[in-house]
Amino acid sequence: MAATPSLLCLLTLLVGFLFADSKFIAYDTSQGIVPGKINVHLVPHTHDDVGWLKTVDQYYVGSNNSIQGACVQNVLDSLVPALLADKNRKFIYVEQAFFQRWWRDQSDSVQSIVKQLVTSGQLEFINGGMCMHDEAATHYIDMIDQTTLGHRFIKREFDVTPRIGWQIDPFGHSAVQAYMLGAEVGFDSLFFGRIDYQDRAKRKIEKSLEFVWRGSKSLSSSAQIFSGAFPENYEPPSGFYFEVNDDSPVVQDDITLFDYNVQDRVNDFVAAAVAQANITRTNHIMWTMGTDFKYQYAHTWFRQMDKLIHYVNKDGRVNALYSTPSIYTDAKYATNESWPIKTDDFFPYADRTNAYWTGYFTSRPALKNYVRAMSGYYLAARQLEYFKGRTGSGPNTDSLADALAIAQHHDAVSGTEKQHVANDYAKRLAIGYTEAEQVVATSLAHLVESASYTGSVDPTTKFQQCPLLNISYCPASEVNLSQGKQLVVVVYNSLGWKRDDVIRIPVINEDVAVHDSEGREIESQLLPLDDAHAGLRNYYAKAYLGQTPTKTPNYWLAFTVSVPPLGFSTYTISAAKGAGAGCTRSSVQTFQSKEESTIEVGQGNVKLTFSTNQGKLTNYVNRRSLVEELVEQSYSFYNGYNGSDDKAPLIPQNAGAYIFRPNGTFLIKPGEKASLTVVRGPVIDEVHQRINSWIYQVTRIHKEKDHVEVEFIVGPLPTDDGIGKEVVTQLATTMATNKTFYTDSNGRDFIKRIRDYRTDWDLKVHQPIAGNYYPINLGIYMQDNSTEFSVLVDRSVGGSSTVDGQIELMLHRRLLLDDSRGVAEALNETVCIDNVCSGLRIQGKFYFRIDPLGEGAKWRRTFGQEIYSPLLLAFSEQDGDNRKNSHVTTFSGVGSSYSLPDNVALITLQELDDGKVLLRLAHLYEIGEDRDLSVMTNVELKQLFPRKKIGKLTEMNLSANQERTEMEKKRLNWKVEEGSSSEAKVSRGGPVDPTKLVVELAPMEIRTFLIEFNQSFHRYLFDA
Amino acid sequence: MAATPSLLCLLTLLVGFLFADSKFIAYDTSQGIVPGKINVHLVPHTHDDVGWLKTVDQYYVGSNNSIQGACVQNVLDSLVPALLADKNRKFIYVEQAFFQRWWRDQSDSVQSIVKQLVTSGQLEFINGGMCMHDEAATHYIDMIDQTTLGHRFIKREFDVTPRIGWQIDPFGHSAVQAYMLGAEVGFDSLFFGRIDYQDRAKRKIEKSLEFVWRGSKSLSSSAQIFSGAFPENYEPPSGFYFEVNDDSPVVQDDITLFDYNVQDRVNDFVAAAVAQANITRTNHIMWTMGTDFKYQYAHTWFRQMDKLIHYVNKDGRVNALYSTPSIYTDAKYATNESWPIKTDDFFPYADRTNAYWTGYFTSRPALKNYVRAMSGYYLAARQLEYFKGRTGSGPNTDSLADALAIAQHHDAVSGTEKQHVANDYAKRLAIGYTEAEQVVATSLAHLVESASYTGSVDPTTKFQQCPLLNISYCPASEVNLSQGKQLVVVVYNSLGWKRDDVIRIPVINEDVAVHDSEGREIESQLLPLDDAHAGLRNYYAKAYLGQTPTKTPNYWLAFTVSVPPLGFSTYTISAAKGAGAGCTRSSVQTFQSKEESTIEVGQGNVKLTFSTNQGKLTNYVNRRSLVEELVEQSYSFYNGYNGSDDKAPLIPQNAGAYIFRPNGTFLIKPGEKASLTVVRGPVIDEVHQRINSWIYQVTRIHKEKDHVEVEFIVGPLPTDDGIGKEVVTQLATTMATNKTFYTDSNGRDFIKRIRDYRTDWDLKVHQPIAGNYYPINLGIYMQDNSTEFSVLVDRSVGGSSTVDGQIELMLHRRLLLDDSRGVAEALNETVCIDNVCSGLRIQGKFYFRIDPLGEGAKWRRTFGQEIYSPLLLAFSEQDGDNRKNSHVTTFSGVGSSYSLPDNVALITLQELDDGKVLLRLAHLYEIGEDRDLSVMTNVELKQLFPRKKIGKLTEMNLSANQERTEMEKKRLNWKVEEGSSSEAKVSRGGPVDPTKLVVELAPMEIRTFLIEFNQSFHRYLFDA
Repeated sequence: MAATPSLLCLLTLLVGFLFADSKFIAYDTSQGIVPGKINVHLVPHTHDDVGWLKTVDQYYVGSNNSIQGACVQNVLDSLVPALLADKNRKFIYVEQAFFQRWWRDQSDSVQSIVKQLVTSGQLEFINGGMCMHDEAATHYIDMIDQTTLGHRFIKREFDVTPRIGWQIDPFGHSAVQAYMLGAEVGFDSLFFGRIDYQDRAKRKIEKSLEFVWRGSKSLSSSAQIFSGAFPENYEPPSGFYFEVNDDSPVVQDDITLFDYNVQDRVNDFVAAAVAQANITRTNHIMWTMGTDFKYQYAHTWFRQMDKLIHYVNKDGRVNALYSTPSIYTDAKYATNESWPIKTDDFFPYADRTNAYWTGYFTSRPALKNYVRAMSGYYLAARQLEYFKGRTGSGPNTDSLADALAIAQHHDAVSGTEKQHVANDYAKRLAIGYTEAEQVVATSLAHLVESASYTGSVDPTTKFQQCPLLNISYCPASEVNLSQGKQLVVVVYNSLGWKRDDVIRIPVINEDVAVHDSEGREIESQLLPLDDAHAGLRNYYAKAYLGQTPTKTPNYWLAFTVSVPPLGFSTYTISAAKGAGAGCTRSSVQTFQSKEESTIEVGQGNVKLTFSTNQGKLTNYVNRRSLVEELVEQSYSFYNGYNGSDDKAPLIPQNAGAYIFRPNGTFLIKPGEKASLTVVRGPVIDEVHQRINSWIYQVTRIHKEKDHVEVEFIVGPLPTDDGIGKEVVTQLATTMATNKTFYTDSNGRDFIKRIRDYRTDWDLKVHQPIAGNYYPINLGIYMQDNSTEFSVLVDRSVGGSSTVDGQIELMLHRRLLLDDSRGVAEALNETVCIDNVCSGLRIQGKFYFRIDPLGEGAKWRRTFGQEIYSPLLLAFSEQDGDNRKNSHVTTFSGVGSSYSLPDNVALITLQELDDGKVLLRLAHLYEIGEDRDLSVMTNVELKQLFPRKKIGKLTEMNLSANQERTEMEKKRLNWKVEEGSSSEAKVSRGGPVDPTKLVVELAPMEIRTFLIEFNQSFHRYLFDA
Repeated sequence: MAATPSLLCLLTLLVGFLFADSKFIAYDTSQGIVPGKINVHLVPHTHDDVGWLKTVDQYYVGSNNSIQGACVQNVLDSLVPALLADKNRKFIYVEQAFFQRWWRDQSDSVQSIVKQLVTSGQLEFINGGMCMHDEAATHYIDMIDQTTLGHRFIKREFDVTPRIGWQIDPFGHSAVQAYMLGAEVGFDSLFFGRIDYQDRAKRKIEKSLEFVWRGSKSLSSSAQIFSGAFPENYEPPSGFYFEVNDDSPVVQDDITLFDYNVQDRVNDFVAAAVAQANITRTNHIMWTMGTDFKYQYAHTWFRQMDKLIHYVNKDGRVNALYSTPSIYTDAKYATNESWPIKTDDFFPYADRTNAYWTGYFTSRPALKNYVRAMSGYYLAARQLEYFKGRTGSGPNTDSLADALAIAQHHDAVSGTEKQHVANDYAKRLAIGYTEAEQVVATSLAHLVESASYTGSVDPTTKFQQCPLLNISYCPASEVNLSQGKQLVVVVYNSLGWKRDDVIRIPVINEDVAVHDSEGREIESQLLPLDDAHAGLRNYYAKAYLGQTPTKTPNYWLAFTVSVPPLGFSTYTISAAKGAGAGCTRSSVQTFQSKEESTIEVGQGNVKLTFSTNQGKLTNYVNRRSLVEELVEQSYSFYNGYNGSDDKAPLIPQNAGAYIFRPNGTFLIKPGEKASLTVVRGPVIDEVHQRINSWIYQVTRIHKEKDHVEVEFIVGPLPTDDGIGKEVVTQLATTMATNKTFYTDSNGRDFIKRIRDYRTDWDLKVHQPIAGNYYPINLGIYMQDNSTEFSVLVDRSVGGSSTVDGQIELMLHRRLLLDDSRGVAEALNETVCIDNVCSGLRIQGKFYFRIDPLGEGAKWRRTFGQEIYSPLLLAFSEQDGDNRKNSHVTTFSGVGSSYSLPDNVALITLQELDDGKVLLRLAHLYEIGEDRDLSVMTNVELKQLFPRKKIGKLTEMNLSANQERTEMEKKRLNWKVEEGSSSEAKVSRGGPVDPTKLVVELAPMEIRTFLIEFNQSFHRYLFDA
């Protein structure tokens, strides 16, 4: 039975009797804004972490309460009658991962009631993503995806679009959050709780906690957002907490009982309001009435707020009202006040002296890598799902989407959750991956067996994939090819450009040959699997899969592949036929550290010089660009501070999951037994170094690439000395960088960083290292007047340039103490076999390159996309040779001679569940970043969809829950303070001509479209 | 707007949708009892202490949550929708003090809904008194009054009568509770949680935790009740706690989420059920689903119980159902099982080795005295309110009734609450007293100015009373009578017998004379106010009233008064006229301790001998009864144990508010400077002794009385040595008492106690003193084969006979440690002036007398009533002499030559708010207690109401919420085990003939009547 509006009315009336109605006192909660008074906007809210101390499901159902008393189901269950009881009461709800769990369990009648509450504005969705994502360790594509997932759900179920950004808890705030996930989503404002304590202090004095934020240099005022940092945190003023069992004084207004305290409470309220008004522009202040997992019995809060509004307004000194951030924002806007401008971002964040929340930039590097790998995979999988056609019933990418969305939470990818919760995120990703893997395999099978050839609808090809390739484990490729079997490798490229790249797979056989899609043998190289990698493989395969692999492949087979845009090529690996044919075995040379010699490696433009007795890289030269630098690479570790020397009034502060607080830097000098092993071949040169017993490194140069790839295996970090450690690598040059370096914002814009300096206030430096750390998702670079030195990363890490000419990345952390920010667990990741545990080893890569000044962006942007979207490998076996006749061996989703411009990436191509196709195109360059590419560019949609006819193209806001034109129409135009720097006209792509279907993209612009194709959707149909 | 039944129906339906309805799972909670299976009766309940760590009002509104998170308003607010959501859900509510606070704040529509819930049985009132009263420190009259207050409210508002006794938390259980507040109230069963750990262990083995309890030797099977002690406590089995944030595993039955655990939880449930079934007769077991202040969000419990019932019954191994103690009781009864018989009581209670909860028998002796004094005053005030006629608007006795009711709570008069809560009880009593004092004053004024004389409706006499007479503070009597003023003392006797007694009032003037109602001068005696009393007066008057009295009276004036039953006499005190007239000044003689002499005091039958060098009483003789005993009285103290020597596996156990655990006994020997002061006069002889610096004692013999009164001032107990102390007095004789003594049950039946012995099990003695302590409300006595030695008390105390021939009373306790039973505060009572605090002093009395064997009961019963109902003194001043002509000087409410039989007390005479009159008559003797008086006796109601015509007389159950005949009709007849001792026929008074109006009373019978008078109710009308 669905509740009709009239029934709802009756219900509201009756539940009203049950809850809001006192026999003797009818509380007047109807007050709106009163001009001329301090208006205290009471914003009832709950902050529900999508996993932290408990898993998301545990938080939802309220299990595992011994860790933390929290049950989101209670919050939402109790909220509905509390709102029904008084139509003036309001509530905001944020985290859609929880809301969706609740929603799907509600009856039609409850759903109908809740829809009315949303329509009436009593219940407002704020932020509206699946989670309140982290802003440091997240990639912008993930931020967009998780926000879109939440926003489209809200749009579909409630036909509303959230208006407000609500990032109240993340530990620092990014430029991308403000301009992209704020303004470009169409939010009218953005509120947050955490801001550097020095910054906050100054802003209180200047009344500049609220401002207009222009996060993007390129999009500037076209993507600005009104923003507010809270005066303290996201909790109520002290003494106004009203959860069950909270100890704030309740308003005792029953004169028949003792302890009547109405005037006391009114006085408390007025005092808190006036104090806040004194640091706030305009006479509107917001009280965030709630905190983590509150409103488990919503009635307790509303009862007290009803009374406070009633009595405070009777008192009359200030005006109290039920409000939401939307109402508050509109009230602020209506004042016509001018606001200061803020550019860049709010990193790093310190909540007090010596407490820089910069450790979490690196915390849980394995999880961070897994999230990033799954993000790239999800992008590719959606493309392949689109090619195949989405199915409602069979496997799809939705569970991976969900898992990834949840993993963006500010206690997920951030690494600040408890270990069991980190395991839960990983489990969800693994489950989501497993389903997406089937989508990919099926789609590729459809594509290779396209109807043109086989007429088959259910393809027979079974593709295997190798998610554990990072630990050199790939059963699909570790097959014996000596019996005439052939290993088919389909290599899928999710980028919009043709791509030449080297792939590496473990193999058993020594004498194998590689043939391309046309059947031509291509050059390939066999590299020995070193002990470090073999050890990693066998230990982690046992730990993760439960058994040690029966045999260890002896080699990596490496070869260069060439893959069309949004398409695949096919390579076949088989036993080599005849002498001279087949792969080339690498030459291997080992140098002991006592040998004093210099080794040069690199067969292409880039040459590296290593000193054998120093055991390290010493020089970098690019013979094409003629760049040469003395580059020394080294490893160090910081000891984690244990807080023991903090004397009062300082609060003891350990290093921990959140906080980086080094207690001494220790250079790791290669030991006496350190050796350099040089592996050379036609495809790759590698220098293997065992730095010490727990660091192994491979420096790798691909013949065709002008950059250096460094692969490291770090761990287990030793803690026998009872001290936690944080391992960094430094790349030192002689460049005069003048304290300046650049780090990306969520993999997108680069922001200029100056050591020991903040744009917004005079920094007091207490932590010269931790206080200069920034999150790195794409890369970090520095410049002098002739060159730029760029480092790109494969996952989120923390990094800095703590010394001129040097770049430092933190690769791994293992700490033995908690840092008192709530997680209550030391960040001490271990891996166990048969209950014997050892510290986690991290395998990862970073890449560096030196360019002439002004020329580094091309590599950072293009190769950055390649890192994010590695080639996707699918394996199958075949007997016999005639593949080309029976299968499609090469495919591209775009027009046959088309590829996206060099400055554009296809960041979303996805068939939605309503059959529409979601497309996002991203200009990859900022204004002024590259001479040639920081320009307006075009994408031809007809070429992007060569086999389809676009019936309707609708440009949407970034989260695809409203038309872009509607969003623009509603946008509030905030006044900024006079004297704010004027700005050049912002460039934006123009409207898309529906016949030409060419999309213009200005620098840093991302455009989002919903496409409806004219004809019925043809699956995997393409011209032969 | 009142909800009509059909509206209610709709509401139920709709709220049902809101709460109980899951989209995918409809939980079947409709299961009833299933024969042949273990039936697990889930009894949802909350245990809401009417004050403990917080005051009753704080618990109700949820303030002071920093002490304890508890808010009863939440419980009741959240309960209503939770019950509406599923008609199978049930709940019991117990404490009417809370329920009434909630009820009066509810709208008509909520009240209407709740009435439906009560009618349908979803909400059942259990126990139903204002509080769950204590059973050790309470007087049976208070127990009856507070139960009546709750029961009549429930009857009036809901037309239901509670069926079940529910004393789940009190610390030991009394015989009076079982037979009187259980069976005589009409309860079908009585459940409780606390029972001696040794007793419980044995009962588990014997499956005798449930039994038929015959608490009264006299009334035996006519007042038996089916009773059950819970197997552990009154909480759910471990792992089944479902309050918000409780950490029991919730039933996670959503297969789309992780951690699905239905089978695990079902297995846990079945295991707990089987374990309990194994120690329980029949296949019905009760789970008390709740505990202290739970169900603040009732939904959280019901959601889990819904699921458990659903899945456990699907599993089928046991049967789970929503139940109540009523349903459980009926199910037990239906089995036709035979039950063991229990007699006597469950004192003392130990919850583990060395943890005897016998300290609280004495804890907070001042509060205990205040409660007792107010109880007697309330009885008298109601009589006077009845004479005057109850008014709805003016002052009445209701607030004193409320305050007294709340003070009976098992953490109130018990002394086990926090200090601020004890203060709250005292404040409530003081407020209630102040209003009742007005009722008394006005009523007496009406009576003395009766219309017959003055025609006045608003009397002009302003009577003052002296509630601080116990600290010798009485401004009304401390007036200067030398100016011709006369002090009029109206002396009211609330007993049904004529009474001769000595009253004592402080006076300023030395030369005063006392005249009786007839104007005859009577003998009076002036006693000097000693320093101990003067110090007590001045210190406590300053502490309580804020200022030291300007002058200190020098004397007590004592004289014998004679007052008719339910009536008053008038005495006039004025300046003595002429030599020889007026009061007699006492002779005072002081003996130093070095003097070796013997003093005899007593001018009547009783003579006491004191040894001056021993400084103590040595001999007692009654020259009339010819009893003589060597009696030595002394004081000792126990050191409070500090738990420090408790080695594992013992849990450290301090002495504290609950627990008496002595660590050594220390005799207090009068010091060298001790002296005996003997005060003699025509009315009283006194022996004053300063025992030490903190004990002062007066031994007093009234000329006309055959007992000894001992007044003590004890305190501040010294704690400079860091050790808490418990002070006792011992009365030692040479009687051969064979380990046996007798203590009363709540001031009513006497129960035989045998040292180091329990009737029900083989006692393991760990605490030879604390384990032999019993609560004393009326008195304690012992016998040998010729005499009996009786001690009566003025308040609840703990006492024992730890040595043959000796009786010991604990008078005061001051402890420095908490005893880990929740109060979390040391019982260290202090009194402060200007922030300088010192330990509380206790002023009190006990009385003793020695009789020939078999003759002690008369004194214990008659004088016991006089202690409970002291003469009520009202003072006014007058000029001139002609009082007798203008005022009524003597009055009796009963027929002119009538008085109640010696074995009957009028324990209630009260006009109810509906105009009916509530009458309770109590036979004061047990069977066999007294040769003459343990017999059936009669009360003539026509004589009791000489000026009224009884129109309708309805005999009620004890709590006056149902007719006695109805109650008898419904009574369940439990089968008892064969071999249970057979019993003689129980004697009970027969039906009252409506014309004769004579009430028969059998030994120990209390009969309760509602009386409607035929004519309109005439106020203070009586024959001249």
